[in-house]
Amino acid sequence: MFYPVKMILTFEHGAVRELRLNRPPVNALAPELIAALLHSVEMAPREGRRALVLSGTAGMFSAGLDVPVLLKLDRPAMDAVWRDFYALMNALASSPIPIAVAITGHAPAGGTVLALFCDWRIAAQGDFKIGLSEVQVGLPLPPVIFSALRRLIGARSAERLAVTGLLVSPTDAANLGLVDEVVPAEQVVDRAIKRCQDLLALPQAAMNLTRRQARADLVREFARDIDHELAEVGSWWWNQETQAALHRMVEQLAMKKKS
Amino acid sequence: MFYPVKMILTFEHGAVRELRLNRPPVNALAPELIAALLHSVEMAPREGRRALVLSGTAGMFSAGLDVPVLLKLDRPAMDAVWRDFYALMNALASSPIPIAVAITGHAPAGGTVLALFCDWRIAAQGDFKIGLSEVQVGLPLPPVIFSALRRLIGARSAERLAVTGLLVSPTDAANLGLVDEVVPAEQVVDRAIKRCQDLLALPQAAMNLTRRQARADLVREFARDIDHELAEVGSWWWNQETQAALHRMVEQLAMKKKS
Amino acid sequence: MFYPVKMILTFEHGAVRELRLNRPPVNALAPELIAALLHSVEMAPREGRRALVLSGTAGMFSAGLDVPVLLKLDRPAMDAVWRDFYALMNALASSPIPIAVAITGHAPAGGTVLALFCDWRIAAQGDFKIGLSEVQVGLPLPPVIFSALRRLIGARSAERLAVTGLLVSPTDAANLGLVDEVVPAEQVVDRAIKRCQDLLALPQAAMNLTRRQARADLVREFARDIDHELAEVGSWWWNQETQAALHRMVEQLAMKKKS
Repeated sequence: MFYPVKMILTFEHGAVRELRLNRPPVNALAPELIAALLHSVEMAPREGRRALVLSGTAGMFSAGLDVPVLLKLDRPAMDAVWRDFYALMNALASSPIPIAVAITGHAPAGGTVLALFCDWRIAAQGDFKIGLSEVQVGLPLPPVIFSALRRLIGARSAERLAVTGLLVSPTDAANLGLVDEVVPAEQVVDRAIKRCQDLLALPQAAMNLTRRQARADLVREFARDIDHELAEVGSWWWNQETQAALHRMVEQLAMKKKS
Repeated sequence: MFYPVKMILTFEHGAVRELRLNRPPVNALAPELIAALLHSVEMAPREGRRALVLSGTAGMFSAGLDVPVLLKLDRPAMDAVWRDFYALMNALASSPIPIAVAITGHAPAGGTVLALFCDWRIAAQGDFKIGLSEVQVGLPLPPVIFSALRRLIGARSAERLAVTGLLVSPTDAANLGLVDEVVPAEQVVDRAIKRCQDLLALPQAAMNLTRRQARADLVREFARDIDHELAEVGSWWWNQETQAALHRMVEQLAMKKKS
Repeated sequence: MFYPVKMILTFEHGAVRELRLNRPPVNALAPELIAALLHSVEMAPREGRRALVLSGTAGMFSAGLDVPVLLKLDRPAMDAVWRDFYALMNALASSPIPIAVAITGHAPAGGTVLALFCDWRIAAQGDFKIGLSEVQVGLPLPPVIFSALRRLIGARSAERLAVTGLLVSPTDAANLGLVDEVVPAEQVVDRAIKRCQDLLALPQAAMNLTRRQARADLVREFARDIDHELAEVGSWWWNQETQAALHRMVEQLAMKKKS
């Protein structure tokens, strides 16, 4: 396996910066990728970029948290990962500039989580899996993620998807409201750039004030007692059932790779 | 008319217990059926059952409150019925084990109310009526029921359905989000059992924690000042308009039966 | 251009009063029309009417705020307009009698705003534009309007529509939940009357109590610190970007009229 120096590739499209996840083979969210993405999202507006596109590899947006790597961490290290991951979700939710996500392929669990907090979700057409499958691998869905999901698709569908850990196709995701549109795979990044450009063509003070207002409920989720929530979510990770299910999943992945 | 000894039939499907309403001819919710159902819902987890299916008769899930019987009660007796009915809704909402409801046929008013508080609603295909028709028979919709309805289908549709007392077909109910799926009548119980089994096949700590989280808003409805609400709802029953409308309905039912 | 004496025509359909906007050419909401509409909405129940239909001209419900007129006002006068417009929205939301709106044609910005606060929205089929285009003309969407929009169509669609200022067709508006139904143009007023009559045929105490309950969240929006919000919204109007965008729009309208 080859790790390029840059886990995130940066492309400039006029005032719109594209951050492309580039951690083969599946853009798994390892601690250093989470930290790098947090840094990149925070730096973009400071460097004068006016909108962001978050994209992945063709066929694979992100497989979510890098469980094989995370299972090797001790409690303080894993707590730090959760803290960074929450900071990343908060940075996406609170971004002073709009963020469109180009879901270029599969986006199970953490892959979909990133999308929940962005302004606009565009998915590539294809046989891809989208959804919050955390429960399937033994991890209860963190409360802030559940709230963001419910905000997008309503309490009824959120309960159903979260509790079952169901993964759905891009088309079903669009019907649920989990993504905003589905386009042919080769157009997904261009469409995300276009959505950003459309926002930048609007009167900016009006757009920004309205955007801040429309997203205030999402931002408020991070004003709750996040330390308490981090302690709770942190403890879930070490639950016996969770550890067993995560280890089982890693073994299955390893066997798949061999065969 | 024949009343069997058991108003609720119990069937065990592995870890899933089916509670089948069995009070001919229409599974009307008489005081003793409400009390029996409350008891059955509370006992199932204590007896080691891991999920519940709530079903009815083919073609008739439940016609709702047994108005002819209730109209004969005095104020203290009727207050006790409301208290039990609220306890039943609370038991369904707060159940430590998942409950799928197999809406086997018609489910006007109280029939639909039971379904609102369950985890999963599966309706039988057919020319059946589903909805909260309380207003049509002169009864304002109790606040906790309205909140549960709004949680499922959103504020706009909830306002429309509640205010007009509209009854809809299973297919329209699914389009509104009032039920989760519609299946051929002969499969509705099996599908409900299957949904429960699917939940039980998931990592249980993760499923349960996520489920509790996803339903916390529904459970919180019963943490409000329910005594105050019970006093209000109780008084509505004795409103002149309500009494007149309910008596009119009972007379029409009696005439229908004769003809 | 001819201004009739009566900017609002009144028609009585039994217990249902129709208020037809009648300010050619586009039913623009000038200060005196806002004040007249507020007065008419408040007077109807006092004069014994039991429901209202709010309609417009065939092809044009209302083009929204009369920007050319409003741009000539000084700050105190414009503050008074906002105060009246908020009072109008509050009167629609809090009306003791149901209000169905017959969206007889285009309803950009303020046209759609009126509809948000009514009980029932029926749109005429046709090539008409509906939506909250405020941001497109440089005006941030006032918070109380955003809340009413989110209540109807959910947080995700509300964010998308509000931030982009998107105008949509009647059919798309129905799919979003922004209107409740779309009917052939010649039937839109009759359907609105029919919806009112249906509500009046229901047991009235039950209907009214349930209606008040279902709309309590909308009414509560006006119990917030509206003075603070009015100060904020008032200041937005005088923002340089907003003024420039509004003047540009007025110039474009003037050029269109000449050509």
